Amino acid sequence: MSLIVTGTIGIDTVETPSGETREDILGGSCAYFSAAAQHHGKVNMVAAVGDDFPQEYRDTLDGFANIDRQGLEIRSGSKTFRWGGKYHDNMDHRDTTFTDLNVLEEAPPAVPDEYKDAQYVFLANGHPAVQLGMLEQLPNRKLAVADTMDLWINIALDDLKILVSKVDGLVLNFDEAQLLTGHQNTVAAAKHILDMGPSFVVVKKGEHGCLFVMRDNEGIGIGSLPAYPAEKVIDPTGAGDSFAGGMMGYLAHDHGGEPDFTLDRLKAALAHGTVMASFTIETFSLERLASISTADLAERFDEFARMLRVH
Amino acid sequence: MSLIVTGTIGIDTVETPSGETREDILGGSCAYFSAAAQHHGKVNMVAAVGDDFPQEYRDTLDGFANIDRQGLEIRSGSKTFRWGGKYHDNMDHRDTTFTDLNVLEEAPPAVPDEYKDAQYVFLANGHPAVQLGMLEQLPNRKLAVADTMDLWINIALDDLKILVSKVDGLVLNFDEAQLLTGHQNTVAAAKHILDMGPSFVVVKKGEHGCLFVMRDNEGIGIGSLPAYPAEKVIDPTGAGDSFAGGMMGYLAHDHGGEPDFTLDRLKAALAHGTVMASFTIETFSLERLASISTADLAERFDEFARMLRVH
Repeated sequence: MSLIVTGTIGIDTVETPSGETREDILGGSCAYFSAAAQHHGKVNMVAAVGDDFPQEYRDTLDGFANIDRQGLEIRSGSKTFRWGGKYHDNMDHRDTTFTDLNVLEEAPPAVPDEYKDAQYVFLANGHPAVQLGMLEQLPNRKLAVADTMDLWINIALDDLKILVSKVDGLVLNFDEAQLLTGHQNTVAAAKHILDMGPSFVVVKKGEHGCLFVMRDNEGIGIGSLPAYPAEKVIDPTGAGDSFAGGMMGYLAHDHGGEPDFTLDRLKAALAHGTVMASFTIETFSLERLASISTADLAERFDEFARMLRVH
Repeated sequence: MSLIVTGTIGIDTVETPSGETREDILGGSCAYFSAAAQHHGKVNMVAAVGDDFPQEYRDTLDGFANIDRQGLEIRSGSKTFRWGGKYHDNMDHRDTTFTDLNVLEEAPPAVPDEYKDAQYVFLANGHPAVQLGMLEQLPNRKLAVADTMDLWINIALDDLKILVSKVDGLVLNFDEAQLLTGHQNTVAAAKHILDMGPSFVVVKKGEHGCLFVMRDNEGIGIGSLPAYPAEKVIDPTGAGDSFAGGMMGYLAHDHGGEPDFTLDRLKAALAHGTVMASFTIETFSLERLASISTADLAERFDEFARMLRVH
C-alpha cells in the first residue's frame, strides 16, 4: 500500500570518535527513512531543500529504485538544512556542533496531489504543528506514525499532545519517553503514552534495541527486542530513521498474508527496522543502504531471528 | 551435575525511589545466586557469616529445598557482612550508603570435602585472589564461571587477569567490560575479554538485557537478549546474581539432551537467568524467589521465548 514520509533532507557534517570526519554528506530523517523503506517497496518523499542542494545528491536519491522524489521541493532562493554532530566514545551520545535550519524555517513543503491518498504515513521528527498540518492533508491514512524529540516536548508540548492523540503510533527515544511522561520505567512510560491516544508506542534505545507496547482488543501487549550486536559502528547518524523506515516499509508493503495489525506484525516490522539500522551505521550517510541487496537483508534478518530463538 | 557457588551472604538495607526502605534483610551474591539456581536442582553454597546471623535467615535458606548450606560457615566471634544501597529513580543506578565488610576481611570460608568434586562452579564477585584460591580447591571442575566488579579492575587487576585466564566464563556489567578493556563497543569489549582466556563472556546490561560472545571450533559466536520487560520493579538488588544463578542452575541441571556446551545452550541458560532476575526484582530480598513455582517459571520462560520469536 502507499507509503509517504515527511521530514528533513539535509547536508550533514559528522565527526566520529575515531577522528574521522565527513563534511557535507547527504542526511536528514526523510533521506534515511526513505533509503531504508524503499527496500520494501515504493516510498513517496515530501521535503524541501534549497537550490544549493547538490545535483550529486539528487542523483543519489534517484539511484534508489523505489524512492519517488516528486514531493522533494527544490526551493529557489532558499538554503538546505545543515546539521553538524560529534559523537562521543560511546556512540549513543553526540553533541550537535551546529544547526542551520534554513529552509526548515520557511513554509513546509506541499504534499503533491498524487500522494494525498497515502495509507501508510510517517511523520519524521519535526515541529508537531507542522506534523499535524501534514497529517490533515492525508485523509485516507490507514496507519500514521510520528517521531518526536526532546525539543518539542520542551517547547511545543500542547501541539505534541494533539499530534499524539491523532496518530496510530509514536516512535521516540528512551530519554524522551521519560521526559514526556515523568516515568523512569520504560514500560510504564510507554503505557502512559498509550493513554494519550495512539494504539502503539515504540521506545528506541539505540544499541540496546527497543521496547514496544500495543493496545488491541485483548488488552495491552508488551515486547522488547535487542539491537543487532554490531562490532563495527562507524556513524550512528540515521539509525533511528532507517529503523523507522524498515518498520514502515515492512508494514506498508510486506503483509505476509496477515490482514490485521497485530503485536506480532509490529514485532516483525521492528525486527526489519533493527536489521536496516544495523546496516546504516556501518558507514557514513546512505552509503550502506544504497549497497545492500535483498539477499543481504534476508540473510541478516534470518541471523537476527535465529539469534532470538530460545528453547 | 554438581553445582557450587561461593560468594557473600549479607544483611542489606535497601532504599528504593518510592521511599520504601527495608532494613536488615537477607542478601548477598551467594544468597541470590543459590535461591535462583536451586529452582533447577541442588546448589552447594560456600560462604561465611558471623554468629550475629539471625536464626530467621538460616531458616529462610533452609526453606529452599535444593540449597545445601553445609558450606555456610557461621563463624564464632565474627560479624556478618552488611551493605546498604539507595537506588536512584532510574533503577539501574544506585549509591552504596555503607559497607561493613566484617567477616569478609577474615580468612575465606573452607570448601567442605563433600563439595570438592564440583563440576559446575560459580565464583560470585569477590577479590580475585580469593576467587582463585577457591578455584584451586575444585580440580574436577567442568565449567567455572566468575563474576567481578569495577573495584577489582581498579585495585587488583593482576590477580583478576590470572583469574580470567583460568575460568571458562566471565560475567560482568556493561561499564565494567568497558573499564577492563578500554573498548566502548560492547561486542569489541566482550571479544577482547575472550582473548584473555575464557571461552565465553556475558555482559550484563540491567534493564537492557545482556550481550554474550563464545568461542568454539567454528569461531566466535555473538548473541544478545533483552531483559524481560518489567513494569513493576521494587528492588533490583540481586538481579545480576539471580541471573547468574538461573544460568548456572540450567547449565548444571537441565542438559536437555545436549552433550556439548554450545552458543545455543548458553543462550537458553541466559534466557532462564533473565526470567529468574525478572522475578527477583518484583520485591525485596529472596521473597519472590522463595514463592515462585515451577509453573510460574515455565510460564514466564515461554512468554519470553514467544516474545523473541520473529518471522
